[in-house]
Amino acid sequence: MTDIITAGILVIGDEILSGRTKDKNIGFIAEYLTNIGIDLREVRVVSDDEAAIIEALNALRARYTYVFTTGGIGPTHDDITADSVAKAFGVGIDHHPEVVARFRERFSGQELNEARLRMARIPDGAELIQSATILAPGFKIGNVIVMAGVPSIMQAMMDIVAPKLKSGARMLSETVQANAREGDIGGPLREIALAHPDTMIGSYPFLDEDKKPNTNLVVRSRDPDKLHAAMAAVKAMLAALHAPH
Amino acid sequence: MTDIITAGILVIGDEILSGRTKDKNIGFIAEYLTNIGIDLREVRVVSDDEAAIIEALNALRARYTYVFTTGGIGPTHDDITADSVAKAFGVGIDHHPEVVARFRERFSGQELNEARLRMARIPDGAELIQSATILAPGFKIGNVIVMAGVPSIMQAMMDIVAPKLKSGARMLSETVQANAREGDIGGPLREIALAHPDTMIGSYPFLDEDKKPNTNLVVRSRDPDKLHAAMAAVKAMLAALHAPH
Repeated sequence: MTDIITAGILVIGDEILSGRTKDKNIGFIAEYLTNIGIDLREVRVVSDDEAAIIEALNALRARYTYVFTTGGIGPTHDDITADSVAKAFGVGIDHHPEVVARFRERFSGQELNEARLRMARIPDGAELIQSATILAPGFKIGNVIVMAGVPSIMQAMMDIVAPKLKSGARMLSETVQANAREGDIGGPLREIALAHPDTMIGSYPFLDEDKKPNTNLVVRSRDPDKLHAAMAAVKAMLAALHAPH
Repeated sequence: MTDIITAGILVIGDEILSGRTKDKNIGFIAEYLTNIGIDLREVRVVSDDEAAIIEALNALRARYTYVFTTGGIGPTHDDITADSVAKAFGVGIDHHPEVVARFRERFSGQELNEARLRMARIPDGAELIQSATILAPGFKIGNVIVMAGVPSIMQAMMDIVAPKLKSGARMLSETVQANAREGDIGGPLREIALAHPDTMIGSYPFLDEDKKPNTNLVVRSRDPDKLHAAMAAVKAMLAALHAPH
């Protein structure tokens, strides 16, 4: 029996809370974690406010195996994630010599100003998340993985960090389209859910191409046999529902 | 001086955390609240788990003027939002006579099964959020507004509930494209931010059409004069940066 590995996401940024920027990172990370056998349990979005970041980070890192943060690691005054993470962990923060050395190769003396050097500030003891194409590195400290807010960079960072993470038995999932309204199957579906406790059965209504109400039923489990047994029960229920009377 | 009205969002649903469904409600509500002068301060996403819903809801409703929830008010066994909200408030929950009466008009006796009646379960003392086109009503109890997860229905509910909310002075916002890399303006931008404490100045890097790094600078304030003063300083800084040497 493999342990269950859990995660939280902390999205940091006023621009998400004002609605100016529509977050694309939560959905990406959620799907990514599901695919590598890590259970995402909670997401929080907070503003560029040190106290808010520290409180949310400390709550999440105490609770889950991993916490992934996005946003706030750029060169401007509103990028306060690295400093807030250092405070949350109670460790120092300084310009990381390896990052500074790479910046010196990449930028002229004039370009390597205080703002850019800010991106080299890494909490003591953190491990860098970097590659040749990533300018400002992310980092991992304890169980917290600090990543960029720009989706393409965040995604590159996920690819670098993912192989180093513990992962559990992958959550398996199967979907069937019910061709029925959710309200017509809620009763029997509840019975099936009760009879198959080691599975999670989700019911997701949607409007089909003809604007008719339809429902996707999703069965999830770490155990393939239990998943198939529950899905068989769901399909039998749907067959009975659609059988000519 | 108008009070500042704040809000939190609680998104409820396993399907968001598994990555199966990509949330579209956070961005919509965030923008909506900004437009009506309510400050969104925090978002949480939790699973279809009663303890998780209650804990997050109680944290958010104690902290902000309003809390908006999405998801979990349908007819199936995984729709536990109404019951969880009742528990969080320590009130009873029962079939709401007005909703049941509307269901009786809409559904035949056979259709009006236990699953559909589940959508009529409303916590004691809550006010319905409903219209002719909304099947399962949302509701408002205390400072908590409970809405559907399906975006089109949630949006209809926002339109119904918004006129009844207190709102504060609207946050004003102006954006300028810097035509510069974020690292080149971080220093002077910090000085401007320090000199204009009643504004929030955000810096958002992006890649332009030619894949060149560029930056949007956004100044926000409730006070139009202070906003314009800070934006004038930002534009003067950019003009100096782009002036021929």
